[in-house]
Amino acid sequence: MAKEQKAPKPKAQTPKGFRDYFGTEVTERAEMLAQIAGVYHRYGFDALESSAVETVDALGKFLPDVDRPNEGVFAWQEDEDGDKGDWLALRYDLTAPLARVYAQHRNDLPLPYRRYAMGPVWRNEKPGPGRYRQFYQCDADTVGSASVAADAEICAMLADTLEVVGIPRGDYIVRVNNRKVLNGVLEAISVSDEAQAADVMRTIDKFDKVGAEGVRQLLGKGRLDASGAFIDGVGLADEQVESVVSFLTSGRQQANLGGMGIQRPIGQGGGHVASSNEGAFKSLELSRVVQDNTLNELRRIVQGSPQGIEGVDELAEISRLLNAQGYGPDRIVIDPSVVRGLGYYTGPVFEAELTFEILDEKGRKRQFGSVAGGGRYDDLVKRFIGQPVPATGVSIGVDRLLAALREKGRIGSQSVGPVVVTVMDRDRMGDYQAMVAELRSAGIRAEVYLGNPKNFGNQLKYADKRNSPVAVIEGGDEKANGVVQIKDLILGAKIAESASLEEWQDRPNQFEVPRDQLVSKVREILESYT
Amino acid sequence: MAKEQKAPKPKAQTPKGFRDYFGTEVTERAEMLAQIAGVYHRYGFDALESSAVETVDALGKFLPDVDRPNEGVFAWQEDEDGDKGDWLALRYDLTAPLARVYAQHRNDLPLPYRRYAMGPVWRNEKPGPGRYRQFYQCDADTVGSASVAADAEICAMLADTLEVVGIPRGDYIVRVNNRKVLNGVLEAISVSDEAQAADVMRTIDKFDKVGAEGVRQLLGKGRLDASGAFIDGVGLADEQVESVVSFLTSGRQQANLGGMGIQRPIGQGGGHVASSNEGAFKSLELSRVVQDNTLNELRRIVQGSPQGIEGVDELAEISRLLNAQGYGPDRIVIDPSVVRGLGYYTGPVFEAELTFEILDEKGRKRQFGSVAGGGRYDDLVKRFIGQPVPATGVSIGVDRLLAALREKGRIGSQSVGPVVVTVMDRDRMGDYQAMVAELRSAGIRAEVYLGNPKNFGNQLKYADKRNSPVAVIEGGDEKANGVVQIKDLILGAKIAESASLEEWQDRPNQFEVPRDQLVSKVREILESYT
Repeated sequence: MAKEQKAPKPKAQTPKGFRDYFGTEVTERAEMLAQIAGVYHRYGFDALESSAVETVDALGKFLPDVDRPNEGVFAWQEDEDGDKGDWLALRYDLTAPLARVYAQHRNDLPLPYRRYAMGPVWRNEKPGPGRYRQFYQCDADTVGSASVAADAEICAMLADTLEVVGIPRGDYIVRVNNRKVLNGVLEAISVSDEAQAADVMRTIDKFDKVGAEGVRQLLGKGRLDASGAFIDGVGLADEQVESVVSFLTSGRQQANLGGMGIQRPIGQGGGHVASSNEGAFKSLELSRVVQDNTLNELRRIVQGSPQGIEGVDELAEISRLLNAQGYGPDRIVIDPSVVRGLGYYTGPVFEAELTFEILDEKGRKRQFGSVAGGGRYDDLVKRFIGQPVPATGVSIGVDRLLAALREKGRIGSQSVGPVVVTVMDRDRMGDYQAMVAELRSAGIRAEVYLGNPKNFGNQLKYADKRNSPVAVIEGGDEKANGVVQIKDLILGAKIAESASLEEWQDRPNQFEVPRDQLVSKVREILESYT
Repeated sequence: MAKEQKAPKPKAQTPKGFRDYFGTEVTERAEMLAQIAGVYHRYGFDALESSAVETVDALGKFLPDVDRPNEGVFAWQEDEDGDKGDWLALRYDLTAPLARVYAQHRNDLPLPYRRYAMGPVWRNEKPGPGRYRQFYQCDADTVGSASVAADAEICAMLADTLEVVGIPRGDYIVRVNNRKVLNGVLEAISVSDEAQAADVMRTIDKFDKVGAEGVRQLLGKGRLDASGAFIDGVGLADEQVESVVSFLTSGRQQANLGGMGIQRPIGQGGGHVASSNEGAFKSLELSRVVQDNTLNELRRIVQGSPQGIEGVDELAEISRLLNAQGYGPDRIVIDPSVVRGLGYYTGPVFEAELTFEILDEKGRKRQFGSVAGGGRYDDLVKRFIGQPVPATGVSIGVDRLLAALREKGRIGSQSVGPVVVTVMDRDRMGDYQAMVAELRSAGIRAEVYLGNPKNFGNQLKYADKRNSPVAVIEGGDEKANGVVQIKDLILGAKIAESASLEEWQDRPNQFEVPRDQLVSKVREILESYT
């Protein structure tokens, strides 16, 4: 045993980049996920929970961080009776596992297969402020449908979802683009080298962050970033660069041409929105015209590229389907600058952005930004079975959306704690337990103080820390007289805060009631505060 | 790109010992966990979700499999810019992480701290039938209370929980023992060597499986197991062996002395219960006498061991507290044979067992068995901070409990699928989308068929696979006439099953309604089946 005592104490810490969630952080997330599941379910999506662990082979390598192609996941090698076995890894998203699940179980699943999934995913990345290596995703996907109606449905469902969890209409926008259009632009400017094409895509994806001028530099010779480091450019010719930039800003130009005065603050650190809050889209009709103009402009830019034209046609069809269901461009809008980082998208891509303003860490106003994204990925299942299986879906960044709801004051208010029954007489624990049992039977959250009861002040401090609305006290005298003391802690706190206000002083915050009126009196107090 | 095409296709399979959960498997578990969380919350417990990944140091080594002390977890070493960092691992339970969380955050947490947690845990073990390497646990623990009132509360809450999720009173029993009593027995028979003491504990824990005679052999010279392998015995003297066996069976002897006729089928493969279904405890009063007799018998056996006497006193106090709240030995009973495998328990230990019978894989009747267990572990937090912090708690085996509810028919019935709107005219997808949007707005789960619409038979097969109650059809003629066809698929299935019954033949299972009555008519059909 001596050895054990010498062993150094383990550090009481999560590994770097991981954290714990307490109380309402857990329950508010669970409630939001249940609301989202409700919407997904109503749309006919079925739940799926795949294992957190997959073979590295099955997961594939689709993380956006191309600089470290072998990293990004937490992986280890199986040890089978001393022999080395498969490499296993924690899933880094819910899409790669879906492709594996569909390939494995496709004979038992309906075709098309609509499924939703929610749960943690893990990324082996450098943690940063607010950037964790375990976080929640909440996805919905349709596997086995090539129709853009499936994409349109996902976009409509995303809009519904945001409203159901508490983001009001006008505070969000779902932006839709199409990889085929992006490819069409590359085709139109004669970029055929795959590596260079990927570089252009990644640069377009930085439009939000660096703005038109930044993209112009990055597509050309390069650019000094904020830290003073020089970022090499993609090396396109000036003409090519201007085509891409005019494509990127075509939605905005159209909007301006339409006289809509749409504000799209773009630039370093700036947000990126298609509509401002103050009713910039004064009329849905007008905004539909803008939408049509955007599509026409795109069609002009990709002319000569069959893939590009196909992409614009798909966007037009999505727009038509959504309008038929009442989702106008005030909620879902065509936007050429949406790329989505992941390499596996093959068609429509979408992104949900929250357009209300918050203050960033430096106190500057900015748009809240992206909370969800997705798109069509027709080749992920093909990896497994050799045959193409069309698929499309969306992933909600759960923690981002929770942060948004907190900003809007929808969640995060301090929750009321349990009624605390104090312990005046250690030997009568049975009496106190009976009280909490009665309260609970009446549906009232209640607990008996289980710490050392010697110091009564500590018990009241505990009730305070628990944010308890009511404390119950039964000493020897009360017991003998068949009564209990009830202490209204919310009222008590109010009196303490505003000692001079007669309003509160008139009301006693502690009173005696017959023991058999314990439950009804406590309920009365609780109801007076709701 | 040629390289990529040559790469072998990845296998579409979960790693060995992992599985996927579909549809109601996911939602029924979520609902049960929400019910359990409701009970825990009412008892004043707060939610906690710790990270799935911990340092190996923080987790410690408390898995019961002593033969492989370095295994049992999925672990890997951090790679920090090329340097090797900490060893990380997936949590194997929710208790070890709680000890870390409490040690890390103790200054911000209430004292005592009641918390619940639910989520997957991972064990790197050989998988077997029904034995997976990822499974759910659902725990509640009280940290910082040395009072046995905390243990009693956990036991009462466990009983409440089982009833709330759907295990009726009489179908479960919570069995309580105390490690101090077990230690007292060892002291009384002069087993002081720690390794030998641990061997005796493990043998006692096998009482359920091998019965009294098996324990007798294993404590003595050893025993041939079912496969013909010889298992070495602990090597106790005959007298010592008999003391342990009489201790183990003391509850039963008392029961028999009390004339209660309690059935406790014990032996190879047999279950292990404290009360049979047929009202063996005819009177709660009598069973309280039995309980008292058991305590007296235990007190006799551990005499001379201060720790043993302390343990019996604690059991008596737990029994008294539970009786005061109305939890008699028909629900929670003292049982000397409960050990619980984990090495970290230091005081009261408990186990919830379901006592109804099921058929095992060979068609033999047996008790359903254990679904939850826990106990007091006063030293887990001490590992981190050097000072003892008392703690007690329970863990529910979520999958076992779900299996039990399935056995009882509480869950697992086939769920009704969504209304399916079929696609007769590919170009009018907008019309069909508008229909499902209307149905959903009315709270009706609905989807449009998104597969290739060419073959209408496939659409109806799809609706069948989805277990849809209703299909909606709108062809060109219907559209022109402002009507839709509604197909009652539940009625259709009934007619198909019992074609000769006039009852069904009188009702048409497909009819035409005006388009604007779509929602009300579908609702009418759905309501007729609920």
